[in-house]
Amino acid sequence: MKTIKVAQFGLGPIGLETLKLAASKPWIEIVGGIDIDPAKAGKPLAKITGDKRVGAARAYRSLDELLKKAAPDVIFHTAVSTVRAAYAQIEPMVRNGISVVSSCEELLFPALREPQLAAKLDAACKAGGARVLGTGVNPGFVMDVLPVCLTGVCRHVQAVHVQRVVDATTRRGPLQRKIGSGLAPKEFERLFNQNKAGHAGLKESAALLAHCLGWKLDELIETGKAMVALQDIVTPHVSVKRGECCGIHQLAVGRIQGQVKITLDIKMYLQAPNPHDACQIVGEPTMNMLINGGVAGDGATVASLVNAAPRILKAPPGLLLMTDIGVPSFA
Amino acid sequence: MKTIKVAQFGLGPIGLETLKLAASKPWIEIVGGIDIDPAKAGKPLAKITGDKRVGAARAYRSLDELLKKAAPDVIFHTAVSTVRAAYAQIEPMVRNGISVVSSCEELLFPALREPQLAAKLDAACKAGGARVLGTGVNPGFVMDVLPVCLTGVCRHVQAVHVQRVVDATTRRGPLQRKIGSGLAPKEFERLFNQNKAGHAGLKESAALLAHCLGWKLDELIETGKAMVALQDIVTPHVSVKRGECCGIHQLAVGRIQGQVKITLDIKMYLQAPNPHDACQIVGEPTMNMLINGGVAGDGATVASLVNAAPRILKAPPGLLLMTDIGVPSFA
Repeated sequence: MKTIKVAQFGLGPIGLETLKLAASKPWIEIVGGIDIDPAKAGKPLAKITGDKRVGAARAYRSLDELLKKAAPDVIFHTAVSTVRAAYAQIEPMVRNGISVVSSCEELLFPALREPQLAAKLDAACKAGGARVLGTGVNPGFVMDVLPVCLTGVCRHVQAVHVQRVVDATTRRGPLQRKIGSGLAPKEFERLFNQNKAGHAGLKESAALLAHCLGWKLDELIETGKAMVALQDIVTPHVSVKRGECCGIHQLAVGRIQGQVKITLDIKMYLQAPNPHDACQIVGEPTMNMLINGGVAGDGATVASLVNAAPRILKAPPGLLLMTDIGVPSFA
Repeated sequence: MKTIKVAQFGLGPIGLETLKLAASKPWIEIVGGIDIDPAKAGKPLAKITGDKRVGAARAYRSLDELLKKAAPDVIFHTAVSTVRAAYAQIEPMVRNGISVVSSCEELLFPALREPQLAAKLDAACKAGGARVLGTGVNPGFVMDVLPVCLTGVCRHVQAVHVQRVVDATTRRGPLQRKIGSGLAPKEFERLFNQNKAGHAGLKESAALLAHCLGWKLDELIETGKAMVALQDIVTPHVSVKRGECCGIHQLAVGRIQGQVKITLDIKMYLQAPNPHDACQIVGEPTMNMLINGGVAGDGATVASLVNAAPRILKAPPGLLLMTDIGVPSFA
């Protein structure tokens, strides 16, 4: 495999993990990082990550600064959740011919909320000869790409139902807080309804599924409820009293003419028993898939980003969907 | 979706099922069939399939005859199992610019046994502006593409193990015979070792997995044993006495420096209890996937062929691998 020069945009926990995994790949050369944090600027990425293998390339405060010193083929972008926020950061990259793999949840299916920005970004990609892909584990794999893949052997698909139970106790602090740990249940639900808490990208997963199956959903609704702690829970990151919120139960339902075609049901909470990913394709044949224990969280997210790099470079320029490029694969 | 004109090469049971499924797709126009059987020549495909929706297009005895009357975009090829036999049938198609989706098992990874023919076919595709893809359920999905897809979220993959148990009682007669039903176990094993019985394509599945994971296997061996009937078994197609062969237990093992990297283990026999498809990715994360009941056989094979047609037409011309084109999807 030809060496791919990569840079990392966003040097938070996921960004640093991405760099560390990238450093383990013989086909990647790390050429720099970008973060607004002035404390990181100018420092070698090996020092920031604490991993010697990441090497001597440095952190810069902006894309412009990095481009004076380096010419990445691909930037891993782990910074924001909305297309709107991602656009401002990514558009200058693709204008410079740099392809982008992003963890931005809405980028999994950007046309859902931002069709105009998606069209502009696609045009910018084509003008610059670059690709943009939104991916991850969820959204990006468990509740969308993997179910789509299963339908490839179906004569007929009537409905797709995915259930995911994640034990948040094993996850990083920001996630434990994002799911409302320690809030009053009502307070969590208020924040959820303001898009300030909960799991991002569930509607995007449903939209990608519908797109692949040729379904025009009449209705796509999402609800989020607090999971309530039945006992006091203490993790290294949060402390939750009995009766407080210890996670989310989030549900997206897509309908056509009143008929339920898609349900995506995710419970992500502290001390969740029996974590798993399950998918039922109702059709011909009907299929019941179970991944016992579920697909582990942050490590797998980072892997999905790094593994996507060689695949996007084989695709023609444009704003890509996970399902349009080659089958996901370890790289 | 733009209408795709399709023809069917091979009007055996799988070919006829392919035509019937194709006829249910609004984006397919059936323009003809090809079969050497003189009893079928000239007859409308609706009559041969017994399905009115298949329409008035006719069966021809050769590609040349069909091309005088019709111009398919895609031919579904369900006729042979070896690259060598397929090449002679498919090369004239791609020379005429017609793309091919084939159930030929060895075409899943043609470079394994026929690297020179594969290179010639790839060149012919590029010269003619056509694509060739080998696909199916097994090989083509359960033991190769689906496990590859799971590795897309892995930081590291140490080994891949797939187990498949198929209850052959529910399958068509030719399959029940192919797995040796009613033979003496020794006789089956003799035929297996001469490549005259058993499941085709298991080594190809292993080769595709290794290719995607970047593994150069030092050793890839395949063994086949008879499953022995514990009691008399009668199906609509075969009659098996206790002690006779009632199916196969076939195993492919791939090693690097003595270490087992891939095991593909398939049991396909009459009255097999608890049919299922299971896959374990040993790595980071380790994943255990189970499809209870397994992916049903012939109907799903036909679906995989038909569903692949729009995806190959989006790919650049050439001899394609399932993992290089878009993610499998119902179409």
